[in-house]
Formats: sequence, C-alpha cells, structure tokens
Amino acid sequence: MKEWLIENGIFVTMDEEHPVVRGYMHVVGDRIAYIGPEAPAGVSPDAEKVSGQGLVFMPGMINTHGHASMTLLRGYSDDQVLQVWLQEKMWPMEAKYEAQDVKTGAALAIVEMLKSGTTLFVDMYDRMEVVAEVVEQSGIRGTLMRGVIGLGPEEERRSKLQEAIRFVRDWHGKADGRITAMMAPHAPYTCPPAYIEQFVQAAHDLDVPLHTHMSETIAEVEQNVRDYGARPVEHLDRLGFFSRQALVAHAVHLTDEEIALLAERGVSVSHNPASNLKLASGVARVPDMLRAGVKVSLGTDGAASNNNLDLFDEMRLAALIHKGVSGDPTAVPAIEALRLATVYGARALWRDDLGVLKAGMKADFIALDMEQAHFYPHSDLVSHLVYAANGRDVRHVWIDGRQVVKGGVCTLLDEEKIRRDAQQSFERLING
Amino acid sequence: MKEWLIENGIFVTMDEEHPVVRGYMHVVGDRIAYIGPEAPAGVSPDAEKVSGQGLVFMPGMINTHGHASMTLLRGYSDDQVLQVWLQEKMWPMEAKYEAQDVKTGAALAIVEMLKSGTTLFVDMYDRMEVVAEVVEQSGIRGTLMRGVIGLGPEEERRSKLQEAIRFVRDWHGKADGRITAMMAPHAPYTCPPAYIEQFVQAAHDLDVPLHTHMSETIAEVEQNVRDYGARPVEHLDRLGFFSRQALVAHAVHLTDEEIALLAERGVSVSHNPASNLKLASGVARVPDMLRAGVKVSLGTDGAASNNNLDLFDEMRLAALIHKGVSGDPTAVPAIEALRLATVYGARALWRDDLGVLKAGMKADFIALDMEQAHFYPHSDLVSHLVYAANGRDVRHVWIDGRQVVKGGVCTLLDEEKIRRDAQQSFERLING
Repeated sequence: MKEWLIENGIFVTMDEEHPVVRGYMHVVGDRIAYIGPEAPAGVSPDAEKVSGQGLVFMPGMINTHGHASMTLLRGYSDDQVLQVWLQEKMWPMEAKYEAQDVKTGAALAIVEMLKSGTTLFVDMYDRMEVVAEVVEQSGIRGTLMRGVIGLGPEEERRSKLQEAIRFVRDWHGKADGRITAMMAPHAPYTCPPAYIEQFVQAAHDLDVPLHTHMSETIAEVEQNVRDYGARPVEHLDRLGFFSRQALVAHAVHLTDEEIALLAERGVSVSHNPASNLKLASGVARVPDMLRAGVKVSLGTDGAASNNNLDLFDEMRLAALIHKGVSGDPTAVPAIEALRLATVYGARALWRDDLGVLKAGMKADFIALDMEQAHFYPHSDLVSHLVYAANGRDVRHVWIDGRQVVKGGVCTLLDEEKIRRDAQQSFERLING
Repeated sequence: MKEWLIENGIFVTMDEEHPVVRGYMHVVGDRIAYIGPEAPAGVSPDAEKVSGQGLVFMPGMINTHGHASMTLLRGYSDDQVLQVWLQEKMWPMEAKYEAQDVKTGAALAIVEMLKSGTTLFVDMYDRMEVVAEVVEQSGIRGTLMRGVIGLGPEEERRSKLQEAIRFVRDWHGKADGRITAMMAPHAPYTCPPAYIEQFVQAAHDLDVPLHTHMSETIAEVEQNVRDYGARPVEHLDRLGFFSRQALVAHAVHLTDEEIALLAERGVSVSHNPASNLKLASGVARVPDMLRAGVKVSLGTDGAASNNNLDLFDEMRLAALIHKGVSGDPTAVPAIEALRLATVYGARALWRDDLGVLKAGMKADFIALDMEQAHFYPHSDLVSHLVYAANGRDVRHVWIDGRQVVKGGVCTLLDEEKIRRDAQQSFERLING
C-alpha cells in the first residue's frame, strides 16, 4: 500500500484534543495512520516524503450543496431574483444541455473545487451518471444524486423517479467508496407531496439519505403555506422526509419552531451564504441553528449563483455576515466557520471518518502555502485560514491517500482541455 | 521615456464609451497614450512588449481607507466588539510599536496590496514619514496622513497636530507625485470639537483634503448625540469639516437626512464592508448612498479587522451583502461594484486621472490570469472580476507606467525579508 510521510508540518486538525499539531503525519493506503509531534515508527522505506516547510495542512473541505454542471452558466445571468433567474434564464439554457455539456461542466467544477481544497462535494443534477464518471476519474469524493423536478406529466415523473433509483443502484459505493448516492426531489415547490413521498419510500428501500432545497425564499415559504397549509419544515416532516437521514439546502427562512424541529429530527442543513446573498434570498439564521444543535454545514450552490466554488469564500462569508447582521461580533467565530467547512460537513453527511486529521480517519487533506504576505505574521492560524486564506493558496490535495493536486495542478485531469471544452459548450449553448 | 505596448489584450476599461476593448494599449512614461482595437502608430522600437494572451487588464484598484501597519496585528484578536477590540487589544499593542514596526507593517501591507492589484491606498496612522519612505521605495501610490487621537493633554494635542502638519509639508506631492497627503483627526469621538476645527483650519491653510472615521457604530453615534447634541454628520458639518474636500470612513449608521447632506456637500465615503461585518458594526446603506449621489468608494480598513487587504474581497462583499440584506438582487450590480473599486475610488479622492483605462490617464493598471477554471467559460468578464476573481489572480501590476509586480512578484521590494521582519516585529510586540 502507498505510504506518505509529511515531515515538519503544521496541522490544523479539527481534533478538539489536539487542535494544532507540529510534526508528522503518516498515511497508509487511504487512511491516516499517525499524526503527532514525534517521528512515527514503522514507516516503509518506500513511503513518499513531503516536506511541510512553509505549508499548513488541514482536512479537505466538504461542499454540501451544489450543481457542478452549472459552471457552464457562470456569469451568464447575474443580479436577478431567484424565480426569474431560474425560470427565464437557467432552465431554458439547461434544457439545451446534452450529456457532453453535463460532463464538461462537472469536470470544470471539479477542477475548480479540487484546486481550492474541496475533497468531497454534494451534487444534485440530471444525467448524474455522466458526473459520476468524472468523479471516478478525477479522484474527488462525491455524494451524487439525480435531482428531480416533478412538475411534468405523470409518465415523465415516473421515469425520472426510476432514473434517480437507477443511479443509486448503479453508483452508490462505487469508485472505491468515493461515490455515494442520495435521493433528491428538487424542492417542495417543484414536487407534489405524493411524489415526495415516493422519494422517501425509495430512499427507505435503497437505504440512502434524502436531499432537497428548502425555504430558500420567502415567496416559496408563502406558496407552501397557500398550497399545503403548512410551512416547508412541517410539510416535509408530514411527508416523512425527516424520518430518514435528510439534508436540506438553504433553510434561510425558518421560525423558532422550525429550527427546533430540524434539531429534534437531526436534519442536516447546507448553508449557502454567497448564493443566498447574490439571489437576495436573505441571510439564514445560522447562529440560532447552531445554538439549537442543528447540523449546519457549508455549500457553494451552483456557480451560476455564486459565482465560484471556493469554500474558503463561503467560510469567510459565514464568519462575517452573521456578525454584521446580528450585531454580535462573537457570532460564528473563526473556529466555528472552519468546522462548518470540515468536520461539520462530515457530520452533515453522516460521515465519522472525514473532516478531522486523526489516526484512523480517511486521508483527505490539503496543504496551503503560508509563505505569503497575507498569512503574516504567523499568529493565529485558524484566523488566517478563515479570514485571510483563499482557494488559490492551496498547493496540494490528497483524497483517500492519493495526491490529486500537486503544486496547484490537478494530477488526474487535463485542465487545459477541460477549460477549452467548457468554452465550446458555452458557446454552443448560447448560440444554439 | 519608457514605453510599453500591450498586444492582443482584453481590457475592462471602466470607460463608459468603450467598456471592453480587445486590442492594444500603448503607455508612454507615466501615461496611457493609446488604447484601442488597432495597433497604435508611433510606438518606439525600444518599447517593451507584453503579450496580453490569457490575461485580462483593468485599472489598478483604489483602497480608500486603511491602516497599513496594523498588518502586524492580523489575527491577534478576532471576534470582539469594536470598542473592546480597540481599547483593550489594539491600542495597548500599538503603544509598543517602534518606528521599525510601523515600517515593517507598512511594507507587509504594501506587498499584499500590490500583489492583489491595489495601486493607490489611503493610509491613516502615526509615524507616517516611515510609511511614506516605504511607499516611495515600493512604487505604489499613497494618500497618507498622520491620524491623530486627541484624547490626551493639551500639549500632546498641540504636538500631534504639528506632526500632522509637518507630514503634509514634507511629503505632499513627493515621489513623483505618487504621494499626496491629507489632514486626519481620528474621529469625532476621539477628538474634541475645537481640535477638529484646528485640523479644518490646517487643511485650509495647507490646501489638502480631510479624512476621518465617522458613524462606524451605533454606540458612537449615540455618544455623539449625548456629548454634542447632534449626530456625527451634522456635528462635523457645524465644525466646517465638509467645507473642504472630505473623505469619511465607514458611514454605517446614517439617517436619510445625513445621506442627503453628504451628497449635497460632495463628501466622499469609504465603505469597508469586511471590517464593518467582522466588528459587527452593521451594514452601511450603500444602495441608498449611491442613489442619493454620495461619492462612495471601497476600503479594507486595517488588516486586524478584516483580516486581509484584498480589494477583490471587498468588491465581492459589496456586490453580495447589499443584495442579501435589502432583498433586492439588483442592488450594487457587478459593474457598480467594479466602479467602487476603481473609478469611484478615484472620484472619492478627487482624482480625474486614475481609475479608467483611457488615453491621457495615468498608467496604473493590472493584469489577471484568466486561464483558470474559475474564470471559465469566458462569458461576462465584469461578472467574473467581481464574483469569481481574487487578488491571487493578479499577475502583473503597473503604476505610473512602471511595472511593480511581474509574474506575481514585487519588483522593487524584498518580499521574503519583509515577511521575516514582520514575524520578528510581531513576536517582539507580543512578548514585549
């Protein structure tokens, strides 16, 4: 088995008992075998050694909500309200997508995510098998699902549900376990209640978690009350959505009662600050959710509403906006923001083997170049990672003990070809 | 005179008549001689040629409020309220600063600013002559001033005022005009009214503009009302502060009447979104100010309350937060955010020769590497510069026609020595 030995490194571990370790990390196969101040025993002479000089290591970041293939629409339509942007701009363009576009968009997203330190991403889109192939090849970890809009005729709905089920059967646990799958009705406002119940049943039968968009805008919450006599949390709860492992994206507009119910049901939330601000959806009640024990994590959403996939940006936003909006400068302190992007991301996806650098955990970790003016003086590293760092500071990335970014370059993907393909896809979509 | 010819470039000019130019830019001495689609005539055979391939050019960015030497305190104290952070953390550490620390901190800040595309920064601090020396050497443009806190005894106040006046006399217009000076009482809550009036008089005598902190927190506004019977805008107006060119930093808590008065008096505002969020001071009414015709611009504030000096971050924040907080997704569109960091910054500093790429303007411009995943597809460049770009995408920087950053490296500063010095200064301050 391949071994790595990181020497003279500084590790921000997210392990409460040893938050910062200066020393060594030994990786055997896909796991961390040792991390600590002393040189480890039992390292194979064939282990590849990496000098930690000038670098800071941390767990790979976890992006709990997005639509990778939407990178092709980055910058295509900005500064519009969600429903107009979605119905008049995104959906017509996405209707023109062919499999090749989904693949190219996903590859472009994965290049961007890997290079900015994301090692696991959640993706909801269609033609998910095409995305899965890119995930398999790229070395990234993906929690993938066929997202389904259920506004069409009965037959279309049935066939989409079957697609979603087929994707889980075909891909859950594949790529050495790097790929897992979920079932995902798009949102309560795009899926009739009975249809959502079918997804819940399928998730139960397949034994996978559920994911959906929820309470992103006030308009959507009000519509839910008009149509179904309940706000989205109660509505989904009635449909059994929270009877299984469930992840909801956005959760911007919540009452105290809804927050309490999400905590009680153990529901995971993907907080997407940039997208919520850009689409003017509002500011999620993250400090209240964290206080109530809701399992909050971070997501970028698609690149068309962000417009980048850099989780360092989301971390910094999460640390900044809740202070400014609440008037409490202790809201979401730096360490809590770093947890949101790492160990809380793992928890939100029910993974206890990710998000922390500790013996026995999966070897998903990243290294940033600390020899830059904006990281000086070297004082509080957690503060620097949250308030000063950026995805472009990432030099190396390992996933499952395999180096997928080396010196800022993806080792398993042809970046130049992917950029060229993306440009071609975009031009065809816009002219087509 | 040195000449530059940029060939096959894409230029985001901020010139309303030609927002995006694909072609050539010819620089002679410190000025842009030509920009347009055709190759220019009359280029010297000695002109240095730069291929624009894979790059996008834009005006250098203008940071209208900061305290460069505070970079030494980056990460030293986070997540606290302004008054506690200032009085219990910053001021005691700053009291230990020696001239060498001011110099090192300023140098570190200038490295960070240059490399992230800032070509002109406003700086308020003490021992300003030390900062001016670093500005002179580094090639950056600086609008500098001795910021004065007037809470001490009469004699100390008099001597500080004299220092501030001396700085203007010694440095205004120096370094080939790259350095200009202002007069700066720190804030209405740290300077008695009569003392502020002395600064106004001195600014009048010296014929330089005025700068101060204003209405950053609610507490400060309330104190102003208690102490002086007026909110800060009216208070400063009564003291004659707005009778001359004046720039106020923050301006977070304003009434409609105050906004109208700032517009009427032609006062410039430095909006510092990251600092205001991080210190939980609030969210400035930027859309309202822009609508009223107030001359808003962008600043980072000091690195201790940000914690970086990357104006791309401020631009993105300015474009995002006002949408999210106001609920209006058309608030501060991408192009307006880009103006805030460039042409509006120039306007806020009463400069009509900066902030636009156009023949006759000063040759202050930057080039970003567009051959990166997060800039693809190449669709709306303004959108990409605001929502996806970051200071680390900057490859080259020119100021006054001189290349001060080449391939991401400062040409006139020893970056490694500056980082090392900064670490030493910090360790002495914290242990001293």
